[in-house]
Amino acid sequence: MNNATLNKTTNGIDTETQQKIMDMMTGQPELAIVTFKASNDWKGATRSRSEFKTFTAAGQEHNHAQTHVVESDLPNAFLGSDQNATPGEYALHALAACMNSTMVYNCAARGITVRSSRVRISGDLDARGFMRLSDEVSAGYKQIRIKFYVDADASEEVIRDLVEGTPMFNTFAHPVPMAVSINMA
Amino acid sequence: MNNATLNKTTNGIDTETQQKIMDMMTGQPELAIVTFKASNDWKGATRSRSEFKTFTAAGQEHNHAQTHVVESDLPNAFLGSDQNATPGEYALHALAACMNSTMVYNCAARGITVRSSRVRISGDLDARGFMRLSDEVSAGYKQIRIKFYVDADASEEVIRDLVEGTPMFNTFAHPVPMAVSINMA
Repeated sequence: MNNATLNKTTNGIDTETQQKIMDMMTGQPELAIVTFKASNDWKGATRSRSEFKTFTAAGQEHNHAQTHVVESDLPNAFLGSDQNATPGEYALHALAACMNSTMVYNCAARGITVRSSRVRISGDLDARGFMRLSDEVSAGYKQIRIKFYVDADASEEVIRDLVEGTPMFNTFAHPVPMAVSINMA
Repeated sequence: MNNATLNKTTNGIDTETQQKIMDMMTGQPELAIVTFKASNDWKGATRSRSEFKTFTAAGQEHNHAQTHVVESDLPNAFLGSDQNATPGEYALHALAACMNSTMVYNCAARGITVRSSRVRISGDLDARGFMRLSDEVSAGYKQIRIKFYVDADASEEVIRDLVEGTPMFNTFAHPVPMAVSINMA
């Protein structure tokens, strides 16, 4: 029997250990820095494959329980083989999954029970940007719509505050500094 | 034998059909709008699951060849069960996969052969934002580093221009307008 079984849980989260993690990060903010990493290989035509093996947290490198692998493709309409979701869809997943599970996580820390939470998300792109057909068209998402359906012991205001405070909501809401290096074989 | 087999290909892309799609979008820009959609359900504790069933392109709704499903989790260090990659890692995948395969796609349109392309990507988050421990800490990615290793008949400058023109690079580089609605059961 592990600690998680003995400790109190809310929404499936071990809230006693959660409080210890929060106390540690408040006391030593340098331990709160997390670095996620991926390697992505082009697999022919419109396909690519990413691996997530390690990440850095609390000042040290950790291995995932297993190497997680995800692949992406494009639909036939864009000359792909539609074997996997598109990169643009993975971005919507990253955003929706983060908003959804992080909201539930922070509800647990506040003693708020969540019974169910579902997100419907959609976003618009102009493929002329994707295909470099116009310099006047932005290639990125023009707008993203997010609808939450939540059954929880909380007000709409509390859920909205938690949802809009999540890492991926803030990643999409603000420009992210990116450093790109190109190394030719 | 389908058209893709009869037509000329570069990097696995049917460049004759690609040119027709580009001509269509230049002539009728309204057909270039693409809407991606997902539904995401919280699956207990730190887990959630997204489904991608349909998307809108060229003015009509399309079904994916099959419904694509992806799941996310958190590592044990964040009280998850580490069964899948984290939302933050999926965001890195979306970005790297888009930059990688879209660059290859646009190389094909220019007659540039790409033999291999690999991306190493990493990004830093402050988990005090994730856990709502400080209003002064931004919850989103503070910085993302992207290293390309490309074997192609092109200069570094051409590859950089294509990579930095991609949909997800521009999504992360600029603020995305987002409309959030919260519906309580």
